[in-house]
Amino acid sequence: MNVTIINIGDELLIGQVVNTNASTMSKLLTEAGMEVRKTMVVGDVHDDIWAAVDEAMHESDAVLVTGGLGPTKDDITKKLLCEYFNSELVENEMALQNVKRIFESRGYELTPVNRAQALVPRCCEVLNNDLGTAPCMWFEQGERSKVKGERLSVLVSLPGVPFEMEWLMRNRVIPKLQETFNTDIILTKNILVQGIGESFLSDLIEPWELSLPENVKLAYLPVAGLTKLRLTYRSNRNNLSNLNNLTEGLYTLAGQYIVGEDCETLDELVHKTLIEKGLTLATAESCTGGNIARLLTAQAGASAYFKGGVVAYSNEVKENALGVKHSTLETHGAVSEETVREMVEGVRERLGTDLAIATTGIAGPDGGTKEKPVGTVWIAVANANGTEAKLLQFGANRRQQNIDRSTNQAFAMLIRLICQKL
Amino acid sequence: MNVTIINIGDELLIGQVVNTNASTMSKLLTEAGMEVRKTMVVGDVHDDIWAAVDEAMHESDAVLVTGGLGPTKDDITKKLLCEYFNSELVENEMALQNVKRIFESRGYELTPVNRAQALVPRCCEVLNNDLGTAPCMWFEQGERSKVKGERLSVLVSLPGVPFEMEWLMRNRVIPKLQETFNTDIILTKNILVQGIGESFLSDLIEPWELSLPENVKLAYLPVAGLTKLRLTYRSNRNNLSNLNNLTEGLYTLAGQYIVGEDCETLDELVHKTLIEKGLTLATAESCTGGNIARLLTAQAGASAYFKGGVVAYSNEVKENALGVKHSTLETHGAVSEETVREMVEGVRERLGTDLAIATTGIAGPDGGTKEKPVGTVWIAVANANGTEAKLLQFGANRRQQNIDRSTNQAFAMLIRLICQKL
Repeated sequence: MNVTIINIGDELLIGQVVNTNASTMSKLLTEAGMEVRKTMVVGDVHDDIWAAVDEAMHESDAVLVTGGLGPTKDDITKKLLCEYFNSELVENEMALQNVKRIFESRGYELTPVNRAQALVPRCCEVLNNDLGTAPCMWFEQGERSKVKGERLSVLVSLPGVPFEMEWLMRNRVIPKLQETFNTDIILTKNILVQGIGESFLSDLIEPWELSLPENVKLAYLPVAGLTKLRLTYRSNRNNLSNLNNLTEGLYTLAGQYIVGEDCETLDELVHKTLIEKGLTLATAESCTGGNIARLLTAQAGASAYFKGGVVAYSNEVKENALGVKHSTLETHGAVSEETVREMVEGVRERLGTDLAIATTGIAGPDGGTKEKPVGTVWIAVANANGTEAKLLQFGANRRQQNIDRSTNQAFAMLIRLICQKL
Repeated sequence: MNVTIINIGDELLIGQVVNTNASTMSKLLTEAGMEVRKTMVVGDVHDDIWAAVDEAMHESDAVLVTGGLGPTKDDITKKLLCEYFNSELVENEMALQNVKRIFESRGYELTPVNRAQALVPRCCEVLNNDLGTAPCMWFEQGERSKVKGERLSVLVSLPGVPFEMEWLMRNRVIPKLQETFNTDIILTKNILVQGIGESFLSDLIEPWELSLPENVKLAYLPVAGLTKLRLTYRSNRNNLSNLNNLTEGLYTLAGQYIVGEDCETLDELVHKTLIEKGLTLATAESCTGGNIARLLTAQAGASAYFKGGVVAYSNEVKENALGVKHSTLETHGAVSEETVREMVEGVRERLGTDLAIATTGIAGPDGGTKEKPVGTVWIAVANANGTEAKLLQFGANRRQQNIDRSTNQAFAMLIRLICQKL
């Protein structure tokens, strides 16, 4: 079963907005075991949308379209689809109740323009959009039964607002696609691996990979010094088994590099782990410049464990706010094991937390020397039992890459400290 | 003159990577006055790439293709284009010298696999890729002269690595497209406007907008509480004038809301302004959780003005690291004018800077009360002359939106303080 995605919007074609909808949709569909064959972006132009829809309907089992559903006149998707499917616009009772409910909850008066949001082509089925006023519309062409040799094509029109689109994909569109096309059940499991390059990891776990059953696929997803291994298990509904049993062999071969499971990112893993274990954290960041703190605090509920941090960019702040000794900075420099140890111990003591993280390094592009080239980073983590410090040499990467890699390295060291795997 | 973009890569179709290449390319092309009509993503599949290329070559003046140029066997773009243009692969001397230069600079031995990077279809022109080993290839089909009624179509194949692609677009591809298609000269100017909603701004500046010459276009680009106005001036080469003269009328009507010019974002504006004026800054962040610090330190050279900051997430840290009085927190709460003032003055004094920023608020989704609902944020900025504090009510937005809007609001207040426009 394959899918084409069409995202509509002039703002995408002028590069004003990055098209995250395409990647979010692709990710959700892939995880649900459907194959995305192509994605397209076209502007709010009748003939371009028509051509893209028509092409996609001939090529794919399902076509997912986002955008152009707002109440303003440059939003033309609904009328175009009505025309394409030879239908007529009628007011849909469920869609109307939904628009009324949302306007009431916001305390706004319902205007005729907004009421028009409940108009949909007669031939479509409305999938209720709990988060917004634009309706999600399901169209079918062809026959469900394949007896006659005719293929069923589905087109789903979704709003382009990212959080509405994502909610609809998860709760309405994907379940209905799975049911309609009677797709296999897909289970996925993420394992976060850190401290080993992708090609070395691949060699190390090859025996295990070769032993995986045929219906299990393994993907390597590397990002900023971390490799996410994704196991995808495909089966029909009557034959589910436990993915966890499959990872035993992986742990035997590469257990020392595995930092966690069932998370998408290391900040999510740290967040969950600290909440679960009831531990508190403080940060002292130099080269990461607040990136560690903002990733943790971007997650709701971070105040349960994150007490705060110091962005110690200058030497004075390292001394005054963290208690790094002037002589340490003079003798060893800001980017040194001695400094990072005093930073991590200083922030842990001053903020009174169970755990602390510190980073200091040369993110670049300038500031490197022969002894300490760009990409030289010291990272430390500490708890009541002591401090672990580590020197990283990321090489002459770009600045943001050095920041991202330092951040992931710090999170991985923290997880290892908590689990005593350092 | 219109363009179709084709991005190739399985990693884009499974949603592993967000397709930022499409938006970067679209933005650069739009700013250069070319129209992007469509963008497509296809996988590393011969027939799908062929179909996309063929369709685009018939529809557009120029087709830009990224990806599939690496040395491994799943990278098939080069061979496919060789086939499509009925050519043969030959070793290109300039491409070979480039590969050799890059391998030498990294201290690696040149292997046969890497040397193969210098093989290109005989019919293409190589545009030198200063940043990587994959060649950028320029193909032409049809006639440059339109006398015979035949249309010229150009196809450019670029590497998918974002920073290589962007460098090539700016330095090689766009200038050559402009020359080949003899396009108009395009000048753009950004004006950053803050503190007024898009529709109110539109009403306010309507008289000025209507007075703009026909060859000047105005676009509203809103993001996180900021509106970027982009003026695009299109002219032939012999008739350039000064865009700055055009903005006088805008300043007369909306000068109080204008925070800066010629920047893409407020963090870039703050960065440039502080370096230019030689002023230093410290931050005290609660609800923004380090986001302000990390945006500034993500820019090379931030150490010239950014001394450091405190992420004061818990009340203890507000007291101990910033000197907020226990009684203030008890009486007025953490989210209050009194607290934010003590935060900003505390961090400015302790870190010894010219300027300081502080934020405290309820980012959500939990933690709101009837008096202080989610989205309630206090922001303060301070210099030697005093402190300005402001209450914002962002409403029940999502967490990241509240963080982003608070961040932009803080940057705008800082710029106004520096320019004495508060």
